[in-house]
Amino acid sequence: MTKRDFLSAGDLGRDELENLLELAQRSRGKRTSQVLAGKTLGLIFFDRSLRTRVSFEVAAVQLGGHVINIFADREMYDLEPEEQTVMDGRAEEHVKDAARTLSRYCDALGIRQLSRTGSWEKDRQELLLRSYARYATVPVVNLESSVEHPCQAIADAMTMQAHLTRLPGRRLSVVWTNNPEPKNIGPCHSLLRVAGMLGMSITLCHPLGFEPAQDVVTAATRDAQANGGSLRIVNSLDDGVRDAEVVYARSWGSPKYWEDAERESIVKRSLQSWIVDESAMAKTRNALFMHPLPVRRGVGASDGVLDGPRSVIYDQAENRIHAQKALLTHLLG
Amino acid sequence: MTKRDFLSAGDLGRDELENLLELAQRSRGKRTSQVLAGKTLGLIFFDRSLRTRVSFEVAAVQLGGHVINIFADREMYDLEPEEQTVMDGRAEEHVKDAARTLSRYCDALGIRQLSRTGSWEKDRQELLLRSYARYATVPVVNLESSVEHPCQAIADAMTMQAHLTRLPGRRLSVVWTNNPEPKNIGPCHSLLRVAGMLGMSITLCHPLGFEPAQDVVTAATRDAQANGGSLRIVNSLDDGVRDAEVVYARSWGSPKYWEDAERESIVKRSLQSWIVDESAMAKTRNALFMHPLPVRRGVGASDGVLDGPRSVIYDQAENRIHAQKALLTHLLG
Amino acid sequence: MTKRDFLSAGDLGRDELENLLELAQRSRGKRTSQVLAGKTLGLIFFDRSLRTRVSFEVAAVQLGGHVINIFADREMYDLEPEEQTVMDGRAEEHVKDAARTLSRYCDALGIRQLSRTGSWEKDRQELLLRSYARYATVPVVNLESSVEHPCQAIADAMTMQAHLTRLPGRRLSVVWTNNPEPKNIGPCHSLLRVAGMLGMSITLCHPLGFEPAQDVVTAATRDAQANGGSLRIVNSLDDGVRDAEVVYARSWGSPKYWEDAERESIVKRSLQSWIVDESAMAKTRNALFMHPLPVRRGVGASDGVLDGPRSVIYDQAENRIHAQKALLTHLLG
Repeated sequence: MTKRDFLSAGDLGRDELENLLELAQRSRGKRTSQVLAGKTLGLIFFDRSLRTRVSFEVAAVQLGGHVINIFADREMYDLEPEEQTVMDGRAEEHVKDAARTLSRYCDALGIRQLSRTGSWEKDRQELLLRSYARYATVPVVNLESSVEHPCQAIADAMTMQAHLTRLPGRRLSVVWTNNPEPKNIGPCHSLLRVAGMLGMSITLCHPLGFEPAQDVVTAATRDAQANGGSLRIVNSLDDGVRDAEVVYARSWGSPKYWEDAERESIVKRSLQSWIVDESAMAKTRNALFMHPLPVRRGVGASDGVLDGPRSVIYDQAENRIHAQKALLTHLLG
Repeated sequence: MTKRDFLSAGDLGRDELENLLELAQRSRGKRTSQVLAGKTLGLIFFDRSLRTRVSFEVAAVQLGGHVINIFADREMYDLEPEEQTVMDGRAEEHVKDAARTLSRYCDALGIRQLSRTGSWEKDRQELLLRSYARYATVPVVNLESSVEHPCQAIADAMTMQAHLTRLPGRRLSVVWTNNPEPKNIGPCHSLLRVAGMLGMSITLCHPLGFEPAQDVVTAATRDAQANGGSLRIVNSLDDGVRDAEVVYARSWGSPKYWEDAERESIVKRSLQSWIVDESAMAKTRNALFMHPLPVRRGVGASDGVLDGPRSVIYDQAENRIHAQKALLTHLLG
Repeated sequence: MTKRDFLSAGDLGRDELENLLELAQRSRGKRTSQVLAGKTLGLIFFDRSLRTRVSFEVAAVQLGGHVINIFADREMYDLEPEEQTVMDGRAEEHVKDAARTLSRYCDALGIRQLSRTGSWEKDRQELLLRSYARYATVPVVNLESSVEHPCQAIADAMTMQAHLTRLPGRRLSVVWTNNPEPKNIGPCHSLLRVAGMLGMSITLCHPLGFEPAQDVVTAATRDAQANGGSLRIVNSLDDGVRDAEVVYARSWGSPKYWEDAERESIVKRSLQSWIVDESAMAKTRNALFMHPLPVRRGVGASDGVLDGPRSVIYDQAENRIHAQKALLTHLLG
């Protein structure tokens, strides 16, 4: 039996994704099972987390399993990810040895690392995550990398499906919003991949300069077209939300500005109209409002929208539990 | 069904408090039940904790539940507690969204935050705790705020009851002791409230300038009188301990000095006789000695008293488990 | 019933050690039991940990128990270990009170503290660990001190036994290797004690100046001789590995340089040939290769040896679980 990792939304085929979504819907309401009885997940965080960390622990516990959270920067040793080096620098341990050791202790590993070295070419390689996956002998799950946040995207798809029933052809607008800080782009990338596989009619809407990674857009476009959907790009918020059935808001830092955060910050000063508020929502077809959180109220979206009757942001958050129960059952059950 | 919070000792009525104490006494000795089976507590710490954190986890586990501890400053995002603000500052997430998200993941939340902004008028509002309680859709428990430490006070009452059987009219001296650091006043406040409701004859004993909050003293006096007890204030240690049946020692920083820690520190240099030692205890009616810990040995109380035959400090600590099992059963059972 | 601590490998007699190893071998493969049902371990870390922390938690969970990890520097108060002091300094709580409180909450405690005050005479006293053991009323386990790492040594012995069947008289080389940092010497000390009790023919191999503590070497020599084994010391890597049946590599900082880390660092620059590589292993009798990890690849041992067919480093790591299940069963079962 070969181990299965879950590093990218693209690791799933379309059928597999749909099976996972069905399993996730079924796991709602069922609080306990014993699929993970006697099993331990090791979740390693190099960055802060609220939803991912708590929802994974609750998911595992509801399946009868156990979680060990490791906050790597304070609790573990510095790790070397490069192969065949002489380790006479800062790193006291090689990823190979940490991954193989943890594979003897845990039945699956999760890794959150949002590198921001200043080089997109480097960060897009997800060096630490891929290194863990290469060496671990148990499944490795991406708890959010610089490139993807695939667990979020499954919960997003599950949330859309619960409200819209059938997703192929439905009009999803993925809308960039402003933020004083450069935010990670993983949730956007993984959502594009999943929505593409589900054949949605995607409008990707962002100011010039805030393009997601080209390879992700290409793959999502290809998948959308293969499944009866489409992906178009617009650079005006008004155009982006018009006639949408789902508005998915989120800020992200573009690979284009990855090496120049200061420039990005200056550019964003003129982009304060990129907020999803009541007037934006009025242009939609009574769209659902989604956001993966955290959100800066009054900056990324207005209180009226976030707290309004079409907002499903807490359902989205809750669905992390159900989606991850399905994923863990899929990988380990 | 409306949710019940436990933010202040005053949230309990007298009957409710007595029921809780009875339940707590019964839960001694019974190590396991399944009252919390399938349920998760999310405990959020903004400050250090030993007794509260460990005793809550043990309590929940003995009831079949699960605990997720979150050390907020390192693990979560900065939170905005004010309503209807434009969040373009440091906070990445609003308490509303954190509280509502966590309410989807957890069956109850606990918050420890000991603000010390320098303004008593601000800190007494318990802004973060009250904000969590307002937005959470599950019960919120105060794990110690700037104003109260109600879980400690239930364990304190339980400890007195175990040794004195009936509490109404019994002579409790709440004695300020010296400490090089300004200590939180929550344990004192909550104890005054609980002892008042139980109709004890309370002597509140502190140097001039170390008065607890006036509204707490007023409420405790009113409750004590309504229940056949009393509350008097003395400003000499000798007067405070004379004829006591229980001496409860603890240092606290006064609201009076909240804005001037340096002044408090200077004043305390002349208060080094405010230690509970053998000679102080000799003036009592063979009183029980209590302290909520941590205690600075040789400063707040002497080794001879802390380790003496009338000291019940570890019973007090242990009773945190039983009191909290009763509380969790009350809120969630 | 008196409580049993496990602070040093020397706390075990030979028969007890052999019983423990037999129990550990039997516990392999059995994932769950209920020996610790309803019991909680409190594990207190003053230093980073990967293997010890995760393997202890997995061990306890597989026995039906619960673990509370406390990262002391961030989560607890500063503790005073000296007796009868006036605590007007930095420490807010005495070890006595922390240990007695935790003994009311937990069924056993583990402590990891690798003091490095600069004084070997001070650090060898294991002041904090011994203080916890004195005051706790439940068993205390050494999770690694400045002097010993006894849990590692049981797993080491178990690993050798699994591969060599009978250990008395077998040729074990304990080999110092280079490292840019001063590493703790506990794993070396505990291994010498255990291998001595098991009657192995020990070669202790290190450069001049990197002598382990004399009292440990004396005790290990005495035990080895009493059990049909021996202990010899050599100061050349080639002599050390020749004809070995087990090569156990590990760097350590010597008590001799404890007060002068800079001098140690300078001396080590000329010791870069102290690496266990293929040519060193070629001089052995096809020896097993062991290392307690973390290891600096290319510095302490070569990739070829670490990843080679005779390397059992991950078995060693895994055996921490089984050894600790046996230990917990022995102390608490």
